[in-house]
Amino acid sequence: MGKGDITRQAILEHATTLATTVGLDGLSIGQLAADLRLSKSGLFAHFQSKEALQLAVVETASERFTERVVRPGLKAPRGEPRVRALMERWFAWVVTSNNAGGCFFVAASTELDDRHGAVRDAVVQRQRDWIEVLANALRTGVVEGHLRADTDPEQVAFELWGVALSYHHYARLLGAPDSEARARAAVDRLIVAARRAL
Amino acid sequence: MGKGDITRQAILEHATTLATTVGLDGLSIGQLAADLRLSKSGLFAHFQSKEALQLAVVETASERFTERVVRPGLKAPRGEPRVRALMERWFAWVVTSNNAGGCFFVAASTELDDRHGAVRDAVVQRQRDWIEVLANALRTGVVEGHLRADTDPEQVAFELWGVALSYHHYARLLGAPDSEARARAAVDRLIVAARRAL
Repeated sequence: MGKGDITRQAILEHATTLATTVGLDGLSIGQLAADLRLSKSGLFAHFQSKEALQLAVVETASERFTERVVRPGLKAPRGEPRVRALMERWFAWVVTSNNAGGCFFVAASTELDDRHGAVRDAVVQRQRDWIEVLANALRTGVVEGHLRADTDPEQVAFELWGVALSYHHYARLLGAPDSEARARAAVDRLIVAARRAL
Repeated sequence: MGKGDITRQAILEHATTLATTVGLDGLSIGQLAADLRLSKSGLFAHFQSKEALQLAVVETASERFTERVVRPGLKAPRGEPRVRALMERWFAWVVTSNNAGGCFFVAASTELDDRHGAVRDAVVQRQRDWIEVLANALRTGVVEGHLRADTDPEQVAFELWGVALSYHHYARLLGAPDSEARARAAVDRLIVAARRAL
C-alpha cells in the first residue's frame, strides 16, 4: 500500500480493528505508522493527539456498529420482529471475525470504566444511544400489541444487554459451543415473558 | 512498610487490586517493587517470572471471590434462597470499592479472551467453577421443589451471568443510578419464570 493511498479512513479502519486487541490505550501512533508504512509526522497530520485518534476510533467503531447492527435491524417490521432482528445482528457482531479481539465496545467499556475524559464520555454516549434503540424497539412492540402494556422497556433492554454480554463471555472466553443457542433461548424467554398475561 | 514485613501475601494483595485497573498484562515487577518499597530482586525471589506472578494473582482473586461471594452465599438454605444469596453477594462484589477497577474477572476476561496460555486457562477454569456453583444451587432449587422440574440450570446460570455483567456495565461504565434495582428485578423475573407452571 503506497503512501499516497493511505487515507484518514484507512488509518481509522486499521486502528479500530487493532483497538479490539490492544485496547484504546494500547494504540500508538508509532505502531500505526509502521503498520501502514506512513511516517509518524504523516500520521500526526491526520490526528494531532492520541486522544483525537481515540475519539475518531470510537466514531469509526460506532459507524461500523450502526452499519452492521442498527440499520439492518431497524429494517425489520416494528415490534417483536424488530427486537429479534436487532438482537440477531448484535450477536453476529459480538463474535464476528472482523473484530479481532471481540466486541470493540465490550473491550472499551472494561478499559474505560475506571477513567474519566472525552473518550470515556464518547463511549458512554454511544452505548446510551444503543440502549435507547433497543428500548424504542420494545416500545413499538407494546404499541403493536406484541408485548404487554405494562412492559418496562428499560428493564427488558437491561436484560437483553446482559444476554449479549453473557454470549460474548461464553463464546469468546469460555469457548462454550452452545453459547449461541443459549443466547437465543434467553431472548426468546424474555420476549415470551413480556407477551404473556400476568 | 518496612522491607521485613512484606510478605508474599502483601505483594499479591497489592498486585491483585492493581490488576483491576492496569490489567494482568499491565502488572510490572518494577512498579510493584517501587510501590511496596522492595528491591526488584526481592520481588523476583517470590515470583520467578511475570507469568508466575499473574497466576498467583488469579489465585488470590479467586480466593477473595470464594471468601466474599461463594462461601457466604452457600450458607443460605438450599434452593431459591441460596440462588438469591449468591447473586446478592456477587452484585456486592461487582461494584465493591475493594476492586478499584471493577470486577477482577470481568477485566481479566476481556483482556484474555484473545490470548492463549496458562493465565487464560486459569481464569477460564475459575469461571467454569463459578458457573458450576450457580448451576448446582439452581439444581437444589429443583430438588427442593422451588423451581420447576424442567428448569435448565445451565441456561438459567447463563442468564444470571448476563444479569451480573449488565449490572457491572450499567453501574460502572454508564453510572446508571437504577442499575442495582434493575439487576434485582432481573433475578426476580428469572426465578419467578422458573417457578411458574408452563
